[in-house]
Amino acid sequence: MSDFFKGIDPIKYEGPDSSNPMAFRHYDPDRVVMGKRMEDHLRFAICYWHNFCWPGSDPFGGQTFERPWFDDTMEAAKLKADVAFDMFTTLGAPYFCWHDRDIAPEGATLAESNRNVAEIVDLFGEKMDETGLKLLWGTANMFSHRRFMAGAATNPDPDVFAYAAAQVKHAMDMTHKLGGENYVLWGGREGYETLLNTNMQAELDHMGRFLQMVVEYKHKIGFEGTILIEPKPQEPSKHQYDFDVATVYGLLKRAGLEDEVKVNIEVGHAVLANHSFEHEIATAQALGIFGSVDANRNDYQSGWDTDQFPNNVPEMTLAMYYILQGGGFTTGGFNFDAKLRRQSLDAEDLILGHIGGMDVCAQALTAAAAMIEDGTFPRFVEDRYAGWQSPEAQKMLDGTHGFEEIADRVHAEGINPEPKSGKQEYLENIVNRFC
Amino acid sequence: MSDFFKGIDPIKYEGPDSSNPMAFRHYDPDRVVMGKRMEDHLRFAICYWHNFCWPGSDPFGGQTFERPWFDDTMEAAKLKADVAFDMFTTLGAPYFCWHDRDIAPEGATLAESNRNVAEIVDLFGEKMDETGLKLLWGTANMFSHRRFMAGAATNPDPDVFAYAAAQVKHAMDMTHKLGGENYVLWGGREGYETLLNTNMQAELDHMGRFLQMVVEYKHKIGFEGTILIEPKPQEPSKHQYDFDVATVYGLLKRAGLEDEVKVNIEVGHAVLANHSFEHEIATAQALGIFGSVDANRNDYQSGWDTDQFPNNVPEMTLAMYYILQGGGFTTGGFNFDAKLRRQSLDAEDLILGHIGGMDVCAQALTAAAAMIEDGTFPRFVEDRYAGWQSPEAQKMLDGTHGFEEIADRVHAEGINPEPKSGKQEYLENIVNRFC
Amino acid sequence: MSDFFKGIDPIKYEGPDSSNPMAFRHYDPDRVVMGKRMEDHLRFAICYWHNFCWPGSDPFGGQTFERPWFDDTMEAAKLKADVAFDMFTTLGAPYFCWHDRDIAPEGATLAESNRNVAEIVDLFGEKMDETGLKLLWGTANMFSHRRFMAGAATNPDPDVFAYAAAQVKHAMDMTHKLGGENYVLWGGREGYETLLNTNMQAELDHMGRFLQMVVEYKHKIGFEGTILIEPKPQEPSKHQYDFDVATVYGLLKRAGLEDEVKVNIEVGHAVLANHSFEHEIATAQALGIFGSVDANRNDYQSGWDTDQFPNNVPEMTLAMYYILQGGGFTTGGFNFDAKLRRQSLDAEDLILGHIGGMDVCAQALTAAAAMIEDGTFPRFVEDRYAGWQSPEAQKMLDGTHGFEEIADRVHAEGINPEPKSGKQEYLENIVNRFC
Amino acid sequence: MSDFFKGIDPIKYEGPDSSNPMAFRHYDPDRVVMGKRMEDHLRFAICYWHNFCWPGSDPFGGQTFERPWFDDTMEAAKLKADVAFDMFTTLGAPYFCWHDRDIAPEGATLAESNRNVAEIVDLFGEKMDETGLKLLWGTANMFSHRRFMAGAATNPDPDVFAYAAAQVKHAMDMTHKLGGENYVLWGGREGYETLLNTNMQAELDHMGRFLQMVVEYKHKIGFEGTILIEPKPQEPSKHQYDFDVATVYGLLKRAGLEDEVKVNIEVGHAVLANHSFEHEIATAQALGIFGSVDANRNDYQSGWDTDQFPNNVPEMTLAMYYILQGGGFTTGGFNFDAKLRRQSLDAEDLILGHIGGMDVCAQALTAAAAMIEDGTFPRFVEDRYAGWQSPEAQKMLDGTHGFEEIADRVHAEGINPEPKSGKQEYLENIVNRFC
Repeated sequence: MSDFFKGIDPIKYEGPDSSNPMAFRHYDPDRVVMGKRMEDHLRFAICYWHNFCWPGSDPFGGQTFERPWFDDTMEAAKLKADVAFDMFTTLGAPYFCWHDRDIAPEGATLAESNRNVAEIVDLFGEKMDETGLKLLWGTANMFSHRRFMAGAATNPDPDVFAYAAAQVKHAMDMTHKLGGENYVLWGGREGYETLLNTNMQAELDHMGRFLQMVVEYKHKIGFEGTILIEPKPQEPSKHQYDFDVATVYGLLKRAGLEDEVKVNIEVGHAVLANHSFEHEIATAQALGIFGSVDANRNDYQSGWDTDQFPNNVPEMTLAMYYILQGGGFTTGGFNFDAKLRRQSLDAEDLILGHIGGMDVCAQALTAAAAMIEDGTFPRFVEDRYAGWQSPEAQKMLDGTHGFEEIADRVHAEGINPEPKSGKQEYLENIVNRFC
Repeated sequence: MSDFFKGIDPIKYEGPDSSNPMAFRHYDPDRVVMGKRMEDHLRFAICYWHNFCWPGSDPFGGQTFERPWFDDTMEAAKLKADVAFDMFTTLGAPYFCWHDRDIAPEGATLAESNRNVAEIVDLFGEKMDETGLKLLWGTANMFSHRRFMAGAATNPDPDVFAYAAAQVKHAMDMTHKLGGENYVLWGGREGYETLLNTNMQAELDHMGRFLQMVVEYKHKIGFEGTILIEPKPQEPSKHQYDFDVATVYGLLKRAGLEDEVKVNIEVGHAVLANHSFEHEIATAQALGIFGSVDANRNDYQSGWDTDQFPNNVPEMTLAMYYILQGGGFTTGGFNFDAKLRRQSLDAEDLILGHIGGMDVCAQALTAAAAMIEDGTFPRFVEDRYAGWQSPEAQKMLDGTHGFEEIADRVHAEGINPEPKSGKQEYLENIVNRFC
Repeated sequence: MSDFFKGIDPIKYEGPDSSNPMAFRHYDPDRVVMGKRMEDHLRFAICYWHNFCWPGSDPFGGQTFERPWFDDTMEAAKLKADVAFDMFTTLGAPYFCWHDRDIAPEGATLAESNRNVAEIVDLFGEKMDETGLKLLWGTANMFSHRRFMAGAATNPDPDVFAYAAAQVKHAMDMTHKLGGENYVLWGGREGYETLLNTNMQAELDHMGRFLQMVVEYKHKIGFEGTILIEPKPQEPSKHQYDFDVATVYGLLKRAGLEDEVKVNIEVGHAVLANHSFEHEIATAQALGIFGSVDANRNDYQSGWDTDQFPNNVPEMTLAMYYILQGGGFTTGGFNFDAKLRRQSLDAEDLILGHIGGMDVCAQALTAAAAMIEDGTFPRFVEDRYAGWQSPEAQKMLDGTHGFEEIADRVHAEGINPEPKSGKQEYLENIVNRFC
Repeated sequence: MSDFFKGIDPIKYEGPDSSNPMAFRHYDPDRVVMGKRMEDHLRFAICYWHNFCWPGSDPFGGQTFERPWFDDTMEAAKLKADVAFDMFTTLGAPYFCWHDRDIAPEGATLAESNRNVAEIVDLFGEKMDETGLKLLWGTANMFSHRRFMAGAATNPDPDVFAYAAAQVKHAMDMTHKLGGENYVLWGGREGYETLLNTNMQAELDHMGRFLQMVVEYKHKIGFEGTILIEPKPQEPSKHQYDFDVATVYGLLKRAGLEDEVKVNIEVGHAVLANHSFEHEIATAQALGIFGSVDANRNDYQSGWDTDQFPNNVPEMTLAMYYILQGGGFTTGGFNFDAKLRRQSLDAEDLILGHIGGMDVCAQALTAAAAMIEDGTFPRFVEDRYAGWQSPEAQKMLDGTHGFEEIADRVHAEGINPEPKSGKQEYLENIVNRFC
């Protein structure tokens, strides 16, 4: 064990009355909720990038964190891996996630970069065997290097597309090797800075083709994980093509991939797209493409991606309710795509941020499970739409009746519907009963 | 002629040096731009609702406008029609647009409402014959009456769905009768106020079915106009299912209607969805669903639909550039979905608002046409993507090559692409040369 | 008692385990928290306008609520008063609030309007005697009528200023007569629609003078309540001069009134000004102008004033923490400036909305009190700034040292400060411990 | 001359018909507008930071620009100065601006940093003598280094306050030495990340005291330039104390400095504070604190500081109109706080960005001057407020009449004002006549 987290013992569940900041008050992995262990519901993952790669910089300031592994060498990458696994096990999270460039330095060529990644992946394999940790997902960073400044799959230069294809192939290989349960694509540069220099139709075509190749390759190598797209409306790009869940659905339909690819929904990205998190989850479930979650929160007054740890139980409860209603995760999970504030300099702050986030999710899980077990909400919704079970209603839906038959019936029966209360305040009060 | 606009003569083109506020300085209907008359490019329409129905109220204040036709009778509706046609001809706009409830009062039953509408439609027919005015589109108001408070096609009550079907049937009949060139659906209440009482999947299904019936009925009656959906992210609903162009595309694909239905893009709705207007146009064209435009502007600092007249030529120029690049309108046009500020009490203000808007569009048209004729922009984009014409690039797109072949090539050739300047400032400066 | 709320008994506290939607689960008026009864901490008020005047309309739809008192007569006004007091007593709130135009119909002249108001005020007096209810504040509606469309105190027409002065005088007289504990000014039209027709300096001068007259008149009549301004950034105006708390502070300083006038902070207005609610409270306390609160919430995805009932306990807890830290309310209180969703048609929905809001505030109160009693937060802040107690630090603040002396010391001592963790995640986790 | 801009000749005015992208089409320094040379009206400054220090990074990507001076040595700093002055003279801008840390590398101690700055300042002095260039303003960077992560003047650690004082003293000395016409303070870290660890009142007090020391020191050294605060609502901080112009006014009044300090208004910061640029200018003029301008634009769909070059003439025209109406600049000017898009890699892009921005400002200047010379706007506003010249109106303002006298008059005269059209569309159309 490295000494970065020296003095910090594995975090234990101590119950809601504990005032120990270094303990879980709600996350009790073995506690059974709706017939499943908490750990198996939540499937927490810790991410590599924010915790071990980000230096604390922002657009107006440089590095604030001082970490012994902040160096561009393989030695530093190995130290980083040691510290990362120390943190994963300290927190008792079952999963982790990475970008290829998080874990190993960029080489002079793609081949060298790939070798660097592969070496660390081997190290990960050993550490996973030792610790039992699993890989929720891997992904390729195709947004930080200047070669990708105008996109990867949507770059006007086909050589960048080719480079990206080769890079994703390797990242998929590595994810597969580690038994990753998903592979994620986030297209931070797949969009545009100005329409004036952009052929949007060509870019959408190229992006669709790239995705098809991802799916083809997945099948070729026998990767059984889920391919996930992570929607985001903008930032760094002025516009990003995978704006939100509904937009991604259209892209998938356009490429014929709606049964092959799902979404990884990030709380903060939902907010930046002017949606609630639960909206994005409910939309993905209605459209059949719900996959996984990047748990964090976005400051409601900031117009950029703040990637803070989730800390609002009632909000997370609503999201958890829709996740549970849809049957919970299959290959997905809760990855903390959350970073410390740049003033949170201490090693223990990394642990504290995750304790808080994990406890919020655990509390939300029990609240959402209670909502479902109570049954008021599902029943209310069922009752509200009950009229659609009538034969006349079904005829409108199944094609038996068209506008003419319906109009005839409306006039014949003098249909003039009287509205009923939507009971929003009643329902909101009940949510609070469970939080 | 009614005397509401007494003293206001038909508006004439007087050229850019005119300081007469009651004249066009740029809109010269017969001027030929890129081989077509300005009037035929722009296809201006004046809307009924904002000009003749809205009383000047806002959420914190009541009526400010005092109009002789503000009464709920057929007599008032006829006076309103007189004034409306006076205004259309005063402005020399070739088209107008309406909702069914704009033109005639709601009756005690749908049948009576329909009769009221039909009576005014007959009057419109006569006036159109007299004046040569044409109908750009009709639509049904399914958002103002309390029966629609929880949606029309997406209402939990199937009787409301039926009522809406019967109402749309009639509005389509009336639009068809008047030779309307499009039929529009705006789903202001097709969304939700709270997910807690909502079955989103059912609502999306019902909405899809409703749209299919619209298309079936269109073909049944031989209506050759275009069916248009007008995207809007929210307001009045907390969330509206036709959020933006990309979302509508997904809905259409889901219902198998992407070849049957197009979009009517409103400037202000684009802005409320956190897009530029030109983004929505370019997206619709890339996805093959560009139809028509609701011209207005939204205050950039206000979070609600301000529906102001367009007044920024450089912004409108970009939109016009993409419209022209895509071949211009077929059945669509520029409908002014714009309203006076509620302090603009005078009859002449109605005329002034439209003069300003029409002049802005005309100026934008000539600027955009000059951009196209100059050729710098199309050429720049073509050059930027020229690499995709190479055989190796084509193989990546046409399925000949997948990840493995591409990766082999990348490694064999040591591909490591060097980025090129995107020249955004250069391009933006050139736009300003044409404004 | 009117029969509008027939079948609804006075709401009782039943404790957190109650699942009775018509009971308080947290609001227990007599429970003592930090040495004071809950009721005396929270000082709840029910407002007249949203509950009894708003018809359920929005910018795209008309009336949804059907209330027997929706008529423009004094008889209806009296029925409305009966129902209002039924509701106040059903909820057990100690206070209520009104605008003059809420309670009585506008007359043909201001004198007649005033008489109408006075007659209802007399009725209120009787009802207050009977019930023990008190008036938290009164205010004048100077934004709904078209005469105020361009402002009241800031109208370009001095006759409107005069009319507003006369109206406010009467509203202050009435508030005074009822023993109101505050008098509020909300300047919904005190701003502009376009700078192009606006003399901002003149308008700010006139607004300052108007405020001075309010204060002069308060002293003249011996009104001992607090004069409050309610900040709002915009809506209905494009820009409102009392944008937020910090802006109001500047206006007060400019008019020499910073010791005479305080702010009434509305949650939703804070959000629309891109602030958190607790920010506005903390700012008002730092500037010495904290007065009262309009409790509600704004949908985070909607850009207009949604005036929903508060329902997020962790968010309200932070606000309550700063209120308690500043010593709590003196003449202020929690007025629910919250309205039902327009689909919430039932009489009981009015009660349910308030039960939810009151319970949220009560829960927040106990959480915030526990935070203060625990002491971690105040102590943390005190420690963080402890360095300022040193003699050298004090010399910088008290004027003993200027830039030269300080620079000499920095160079002499080689001062090069090392940053310390801000511990944000640690602190946020602790907040959740108390919620 | 360095060879970075090799092949680029000084930019000349070629007139509106020029299609040479490397020429001015509107900026003609010697052209006389309203009795003053364009150059003397606009007082353009080129900034050091965006052009010569920013590497093209964003929160999701690293360096894209490759500049020979990107190194942390004094040699590189001198090369950078050479290139900078080449660019200033190529563009023919009369002024430049810097932060201390832009121009010279940070040393091991503040003393060493100061010596580095002083050495470059001496070099600047020589170059200014040679070229005639002048310094619009200098400022100290107190936001990039980690020592300032929790603020400079508002840091909880008084040693940081002291360090900042010593740093500002030196930056003021250097600005004074170069004959700078203003000294600017931008408080990017003067705010908070979380209220939970913040004593806002103490921080506002410390900030006020710091400002007082700036003013005291200015007078002590005989600096005759203007002290300017640059408002910004947030970013990098979650909340910044100098949120907008109105907030800064309150801070200045609180510190008794409203006659000593003015504002430097940045277009993009106005937009981020949910204001129009012209609003901030008009507000500063109404409050008597208008100083200078940071010219740029913010993408209306991006929630962070995009710092693009201005390119919308109608928008800039409104700003320019208010600047001219207020008498134009005294010590202020138009500093381009604008940066290239990170994909704009070429040396010539730096020049192109500024050509575009300077031309937009020049066009706006002539349009605004024409608006003023035409006189319609000032006259319209004067007429609209003309009623305030009446004796009765004056009595309300000068204190002769209070609420009682006014109310008596309203009732006696039966005052019931009739609203007049605000004519917004008319006025907006006229603006377009001049653009």
